[in-house]
Amino acid sequence: MPSDDKTLSKQSLHTSAKEQFIDITPQVEKAVREMGLTNGLVVVYAPHTTAAIAINENHDPTVAHDILVTLDHAAPLDRGFQHLEGNSIAHAKSALVGCSQTVIVQDGQLVMGTWQGIFFCEFDGPRHRTFYVKGLTTA
Amino acid sequence: MPSDDKTLSKQSLHTSAKEQFIDITPQVEKAVREMGLTNGLVVVYAPHTTAAIAINENHDPTVAHDILVTLDHAAPLDRGFQHLEGNSIAHAKSALVGCSQTVIVQDGQLVMGTWQGIFFCEFDGPRHRTFYVKGLTTA
Amino acid sequence: MPSDDKTLSKQSLHTSAKEQFIDITPQVEKAVREMGLTNGLVVVYAPHTTAAIAINENHDPTVAHDILVTLDHAAPLDRGFQHLEGNSIAHAKSALVGCSQTVIVQDGQLVMGTWQGIFFCEFDGPRHRTFYVKGLTTA
Repeated sequence: MPSDDKTLSKQSLHTSAKEQFIDITPQVEKAVREMGLTNGLVVVYAPHTTAAIAINENHDPTVAHDILVTLDHAAPLDRGFQHLEGNSIAHAKSALVGCSQTVIVQDGQLVMGTWQGIFFCEFDGPRHRTFYVKGLTTA
Repeated sequence: MPSDDKTLSKQSLHTSAKEQFIDITPQVEKAVREMGLTNGLVVVYAPHTTAAIAINENHDPTVAHDILVTLDHAAPLDRGFQHLEGNSIAHAKSALVGCSQTVIVQDGQLVMGTWQGIFFCEFDGPRHRTFYVKGLTTA
Repeated sequence: MPSDDKTLSKQSLHTSAKEQFIDITPQVEKAVREMGLTNGLVVVYAPHTTAAIAINENHDPTVAHDILVTLDHAAPLDRGFQHLEGNSIAHAKSALVGCSQTVIVQDGQLVMGTWQGIFFCEFDGPRHRTFYVKGLTTA
């Protein structure tokens, strides 16, 4: 990426389990500061087909655990799959949660709820992963 | 929020049931008019971890009912949850549906399908809730 | 739509099955080129209540098949539905996957992962369908 585009930041992380929610709110906040973004939006985007970006409670870690348990019910193990890599469930969970989230920025701060955090959702780890933070300025 | 930022509108509503889809299309349209937004995007964002924003049919109220019935199947009651507040299902539904939606605006109008409306989705009510409407201008 | 708004493109397609994932990445790339969009975002939006837009693997077509199989589990047939048109499942799948996706654009290219493609997801076909591509410029 050209070094002179301050509106796009590429971040990386390592996941350590098959399935894992990692709170990336601090990295997104840091990227917003470094962009000098005051008022606008940020898009957080995972360029992966077996991972996702979610927004939910990041104060009590049992919430992420329980969301993963629920996704296991919604997308259970092999139900006549054709894809031979054995990770169809991870693709389905990625499609259900979605690979990006959009957050409003005002006065340099993410406009989120008290209990909300931004998670990188690993569904087929452990792996080296990346995500993008893209900023848009409004006023 | 500073009164001089016309691109961000904070709205509030009361939900009256444990689970409920409330059509907020009129509030979003009003916010777009008040911003003077002609061409661009609006992001509708719920700052909550047990609620969501969805776009689907708002003409026949049975559609929202049936989506809630389906979500009850996808995210059923206690399956070995750890979160002690008893509302893990509401968190999971919030993560599955997502806390924001993005809608295109042209000539001051939301560019949506004939049958589409924007819903505030309550999964752990009744509560006092808020949502944001953020406008971005393009051309 | 006014012919002088180059930031909004309306596309159409025909679906040929009840449920189908159609790779629309080439159409989105073409729309970005025609807009002359260099750095920014594109929003891909389906104005339908029984269809969706998803991002996932487009190299191995069995992945889309397996995602559809998983959605059939998450949203199974009639569970006490009220909507009389018989397509409640399609509405629920549309709400779960979502009617839009946002993709970053840099140097005129979509910033996506190697295996990612953009899909139009049909859940109640075959039908004539449309989708919008909306571009926003940043730097």
